[in-house]
Amino acid sequence: MSEITQRDVQYMRHALELAKRGAGHVSPNPMVGAVIVKDDRIIGEGWHEHIGGLHAERNAFKNCTEDCTGATIYVTLEPCCHWGRTPPCTDAILEHKIARVVVGCLDPNPLVAGKGLRILRDAGISCVSGVLENECHAVNEVFFHYITTKTPFVVMKYAMTLDGRIAAYTGDSKWVTGETARLHVQETRKRLSGIMVGIGTVLADDPMLNCRIETGVDPIRLICDSQLRTPLDSQLVRTAKDIPTWIFCAHAQSDRAAALEKAGVRVVSLPDADGKRVDLRAVMNYLGEQQVDSVLLEGGGTLNGEALRLGLVHKVQAYIAPKLIGGASAHGPVGGPGIAKMADALQLADLTITRLGEDILIEGRIRKD
Amino acid sequence: MSEITQRDVQYMRHALELAKRGAGHVSPNPMVGAVIVKDDRIIGEGWHEHIGGLHAERNAFKNCTEDCTGATIYVTLEPCCHWGRTPPCTDAILEHKIARVVVGCLDPNPLVAGKGLRILRDAGISCVSGVLENECHAVNEVFFHYITTKTPFVVMKYAMTLDGRIAAYTGDSKWVTGETARLHVQETRKRLSGIMVGIGTVLADDPMLNCRIETGVDPIRLICDSQLRTPLDSQLVRTAKDIPTWIFCAHAQSDRAAALEKAGVRVVSLPDADGKRVDLRAVMNYLGEQQVDSVLLEGGGTLNGEALRLGLVHKVQAYIAPKLIGGASAHGPVGGPGIAKMADALQLADLTITRLGEDILIEGRIRKD
Repeated sequence: MSEITQRDVQYMRHALELAKRGAGHVSPNPMVGAVIVKDDRIIGEGWHEHIGGLHAERNAFKNCTEDCTGATIYVTLEPCCHWGRTPPCTDAILEHKIARVVVGCLDPNPLVAGKGLRILRDAGISCVSGVLENECHAVNEVFFHYITTKTPFVVMKYAMTLDGRIAAYTGDSKWVTGETARLHVQETRKRLSGIMVGIGTVLADDPMLNCRIETGVDPIRLICDSQLRTPLDSQLVRTAKDIPTWIFCAHAQSDRAAALEKAGVRVVSLPDADGKRVDLRAVMNYLGEQQVDSVLLEGGGTLNGEALRLGLVHKVQAYIAPKLIGGASAHGPVGGPGIAKMADALQLADLTITRLGEDILIEGRIRKD
Repeated sequence: MSEITQRDVQYMRHALELAKRGAGHVSPNPMVGAVIVKDDRIIGEGWHEHIGGLHAERNAFKNCTEDCTGATIYVTLEPCCHWGRTPPCTDAILEHKIARVVVGCLDPNPLVAGKGLRILRDAGISCVSGVLENECHAVNEVFFHYITTKTPFVVMKYAMTLDGRIAAYTGDSKWVTGETARLHVQETRKRLSGIMVGIGTVLADDPMLNCRIETGVDPIRLICDSQLRTPLDSQLVRTAKDIPTWIFCAHAQSDRAAALEKAGVRVVSLPDADGKRVDLRAVMNYLGEQQVDSVLLEGGGTLNGEALRLGLVHKVQAYIAPKLIGGASAHGPVGGPGIAKMADALQLADLTITRLGEDILIEGRIRKD
């Protein structure tokens, strides 16, 4: 077992930066970065660039500027040891006569899960894991969740005033936050595979729900609309041939469904939860089956409340604008019946606070006790 | 006009720390600190310690360890030039043959307001002002507001969940925030002269509203209770002989008022605003007349909403707990009718964000456009 040095941490940090370049292009694969170092110089680096492309390790080998016999490779995620779309990375590491492998975190994929490192150790290679483990884990929180549960990682996002309102009592909500925060939301949309709203939001705002960043890929637009009330002339339906748009219903009139399908919408009929609304758990299971590994939940309050109540939310991104709007009847971000006792409130962990222009982003993971 | 050096800033920072030691003891006077420096050594320091006591400058002279002829004095606030409870500090500076005076900010008190420095300059003393001006101003935001408006500086404080609720839909609110944040509220209570709630909070929570810090002075407890519904057996009334307790009403039944007064409560009858509730502007004017320079407004939502609507709030302290409680009918911190358009929301400026244990404090000044 070799020691971990400060240099190891520095090279891993570089590998992590490389990994992040895959954001939005590798789903449902993990983002991975790799750096090859010899005589304390980087002689090769690479990352998993797009789904179906080479893994980070193989890209790093491909980019190597000199012979890497005896070198150290830094990889943010344990190298795979199974045949997927590409051959095992452990083979590549052995072929290139790497002397030492430094890994950020183990791969929770049941096909790997420690086996990759064991193969390398058995071949006599010095192996270390757990360098910048938390960061390397966080960059792939979506992947790790999906590979172990086969349901999407759900991020609940909302923007509210400092007095907890997502709109004025009149419904007016343009805009709660400033440009910097709204651009940040776009970045999040780019990172996640799907974006979900309830029919209330569709009827109130007629949103586009696309990713307005040039290099971004549009997430699949997911609408919970139990009774298929989404208007045929809504922006969502009118653009459904260009941007994937799925509507989940429980009580579909077949002519309505047919009209939406003709416009390019995928209409998914699922069981209802309470005789009225589509069962959100069934929606998430369906999405998991369809390889949708992550969902940005953009409310409104009723849908947010239901997703929280069912334990379907994993992370919260709350954008807070430093303004007060008041109004006893103005909506907050989480509706539904709510929790009866403050002591039973859902707790967030791993809190981060970020200033975004004039606004504040508070992020946290929903703690599962 | 002498130059400002880094050493000047350092000595002023020290004077500012001294000034803060007067917190809770000098109201309605400002907190002031003073440092006397000769040959780059501190030879005397002092602060305004308690109402009626010596001003900071005179305390610094009193504590001087050697002759201060030719020394520099650093004062967070412009020295006074008028007779108040004590003689003018400008006289003391002249008597002690100080060569240079460095001031944090000018005194907005109309009796001083630049005159103090002019007297010193006219006497041939080198004077500089504006060193750490913002910080020196902020430490006395209450004083500066009160001296110029003769109405209290109002800080609206609330604790809410990350989804904007001050209580569960059931009314349960114990506790929203953790111990560190609650202790911080106690520190704030210590700094301000009065603490205000509405009758709704009294009936729901039966609060004590005292300062539970050992060295703290209890603020005056102020209750907006238009119809005198405060129960005679409430904690507030039962302790009214020990802690000043004022109730503001608009429609007082005289026997009810007499019973409260017998228990030690000051019952203040004021005009109503809308035929129903006491006029909050009249309350603030009354408090100003009574030399209550500052009020911590602790809601509930109806009172908070009304104070905001009337433009009576100057600062907001929002404690945010990283938890979600949900509930379409759970109360937010600011009730009342609310503002109709998001673009017209009240804006906060000079935002600060502080982590307090697991919770987050967001503070800001209400921007007056």
